[in-house]
Amino acid sequence: MRILLTGFDPFGGETINPAYEAVQMVSDSAGGADIVKLEVPTVFRKGAAMVIEKLREINPDAVLSVGQAGGRAGITVEFVGINYIEARHPDNEGQAPDGEIIAADGEDAYFATLPAREIAEHINAHGIPASVSYSAGTYVCNDVLYSVLHYARHHAPALKAGFIHVPFAPEQVVGKREGLPSMHIGDIAKALEYAIEVIVCCGDGR
Amino acid sequence: MRILLTGFDPFGGETINPAYEAVQMVSDSAGGADIVKLEVPTVFRKGAAMVIEKLREINPDAVLSVGQAGGRAGITVEFVGINYIEARHPDNEGQAPDGEIIAADGEDAYFATLPAREIAEHINAHGIPASVSYSAGTYVCNDVLYSVLHYARHHAPALKAGFIHVPFAPEQVVGKREGLPSMHIGDIAKALEYAIEVIVCCGDGR
Amino acid sequence: MRILLTGFDPFGGETINPAYEAVQMVSDSAGGADIVKLEVPTVFRKGAAMVIEKLREINPDAVLSVGQAGGRAGITVEFVGINYIEARHPDNEGQAPDGEIIAADGEDAYFATLPAREIAEHINAHGIPASVSYSAGTYVCNDVLYSVLHYARHHAPALKAGFIHVPFAPEQVVGKREGLPSMHIGDIAKALEYAIEVIVCCGDGR
Amino acid sequence: MRILLTGFDPFGGETINPAYEAVQMVSDSAGGADIVKLEVPTVFRKGAAMVIEKLREINPDAVLSVGQAGGRAGITVEFVGINYIEARHPDNEGQAPDGEIIAADGEDAYFATLPAREIAEHINAHGIPASVSYSAGTYVCNDVLYSVLHYARHHAPALKAGFIHVPFAPEQVVGKREGLPSMHIGDIAKALEYAIEVIVCCGDGR
Repeated sequence: MRILLTGFDPFGGETINPAYEAVQMVSDSAGGADIVKLEVPTVFRKGAAMVIEKLREINPDAVLSVGQAGGRAGITVEFVGINYIEARHPDNEGQAPDGEIIAADGEDAYFATLPAREIAEHINAHGIPASVSYSAGTYVCNDVLYSVLHYARHHAPALKAGFIHVPFAPEQVVGKREGLPSMHIGDIAKALEYAIEVIVCCGDGR
Repeated sequence: MRILLTGFDPFGGETINPAYEAVQMVSDSAGGADIVKLEVPTVFRKGAAMVIEKLREINPDAVLSVGQAGGRAGITVEFVGINYIEARHPDNEGQAPDGEIIAADGEDAYFATLPAREIAEHINAHGIPASVSYSAGTYVCNDVLYSVLHYARHHAPALKAGFIHVPFAPEQVVGKREGLPSMHIGDIAKALEYAIEVIVCCGDGR
Repeated sequence: MRILLTGFDPFGGETINPAYEAVQMVSDSAGGADIVKLEVPTVFRKGAAMVIEKLREINPDAVLSVGQAGGRAGITVEFVGINYIEARHPDNEGQAPDGEIIAADGEDAYFATLPAREIAEHINAHGIPASVSYSAGTYVCNDVLYSVLHYARHHAPALKAGFIHVPFAPEQVVGKREGLPSMHIGDIAKALEYAIEVIVCCGDGR
Repeated sequence: MRILLTGFDPFGGETINPAYEAVQMVSDSAGGADIVKLEVPTVFRKGAAMVIEKLREINPDAVLSVGQAGGRAGITVEFVGINYIEARHPDNEGQAPDGEIIAADGEDAYFATLPAREIAEHINAHGIPASVSYSAGTYVCNDVLYSVLHYARHHAPALKAGFIHVPFAPEQVVGKREGLPSMHIGDIAKALEYAIEVIVCCGDGR
């Protein structure tokens, strides 16, 4: 089984992105699968296009994208991507869409086709806090999730696709406002490996 | 230099206490000091008495007590202990003081004599979120902090004393309400070692 | 212009639902419209069916449903309803769907057709905190939102539909865990009237 | 019975201070007492000096100071003032003490002499969320609380003194980060009147 595992580059003034830091730590054979990793620029449209290009190239069985959701305390497995982007802060190329549809021919939203609940429960079972999230926001993360699901719907019906948001790393919250949660990057990487175990064993679960 | 490092046992239905878990991971020669460790029962009066007994026995240069503050996101270094205990949930022997003075002959509060701000800043400098806290609560943690400071004031003026609260471990927040922060126990242990470095180098700072 | 304004009855052990309390306080001619009010049971399927029955009966220009989102600090205007219900706590008739599709023939989600952003901005302009939310959850609130949007898509294309979540009332957070936000019910009612002003003036905005 | 009720002027870039807004709304004969109101500048040392000057002038039975604690969700009744000031943001005259003792001859802290718990419980009983706080921070609020308690200890032993922190008003959180709680100013004013009822009836309770 081949799985594309993507992580974004740093954005919003951060020097690291815990998503890609953790992706790099995941074993290339996690869950017994062939894990192909890709760093994705935090740029509207371009990030999604790069993931889809890679999907066309390597034709994996599943794609799991990983992004930073600063402020969340646990791993969150996204349930749905919506056909809408809006940014309060510009992306890494200075774009800040002010409420745009992603795909003119797309439905309002698509559910992720990786089993969000099973993934969250499996991560929890290993002592790392995780839950299902019903909003991936309206930033580049949602852009990638929706765009990939839209691509799969029309061009790769067997492809399973999903998205995981991860908290800030501890070093990122130092100096920010008090009370911001964080997660050890090693634990984030483990959570991704547990997610991959679910994808390998039961990605068709839903 | 000899430092007494104490951690509480689990309470409130938890099966671990990240405070003592982390204390156990601290090197016995952290900061070049002679670290003596003590597990303390989460019991009003008795916990404090046990720490003070150990202080009399080994006569250390400093004592750092460590407790769990579930719900806090970072390491918090306590600035002050108050002469008051009140519990919403019973301690490990079923006591729940309903607003009591700890020491009839004590002042309303004592400032910790370990340098809280320097400790927090040194932990931060190593990428682990930490801040000074101005309330150690009214539970057994505050009981130990105040009681030790009261003892030092009257019987061991050279002794430096302080308290560090630590977040839940990740496994503790699984299944609790969403959004509860946690911290990797290995990172908590590192934070304690950084605190010890400050105690060794500059415990007289304030 | 006729607007159906719905609010849920109390659930989850609460004795009031601030949503319906506020709905009752809204002027029957808010925004110059003809406001028809409906109390809706917090019951999966049945709540949605009752709203749709009322829509068929009075054939309004717009429908705004209002529900309680305990724990949120401000008014949140929902952007999207999803074709999925899942409950951790039973509804008022003891049902707790464990992950069900609402409409077998429906798309994964529908965007609200009332202008969420304009409504939030207009409420903010009057000094009451409001924002757009991209998840109405998976409880009865989302059931009503999605079901109404599904109905409108197929049977009432001119009907504008949306949903507003409101915080707990102050009296509801007394005795709950510390730090839970709340909002004065009179302010919630004002926010609903500001929302109605937007619906009347510019409900076709999107 | 005469009660001095003080509230701070706006600070930190705010155009209102909900503390003084609410103080102004309190009845001059709340609880049957003679309520004397004073607006206090948010300035280290000067604010405290002005309150103490007024205490000398009118010689009240009790003094209740009220300040804004942005970010807190409910009314918090302070239990203790500490002999320490430290500011991250300058006060209204540009001072930002970097860790100073307030009174060289003072104890580390003094407990408020108004009954914090009874006040919080009485406010709760009227449906407004309130709790006891064990830290008044290290800003001008704590400066006033500690300074007044220090003055009372040495010069006015019969004077009862305490402090209440109040949340942001709703209009203050508009445009700030999402999730910040707020409270209707009319409800804050009511809470102050309930506090005064406790002071009148049972201010000697502790």
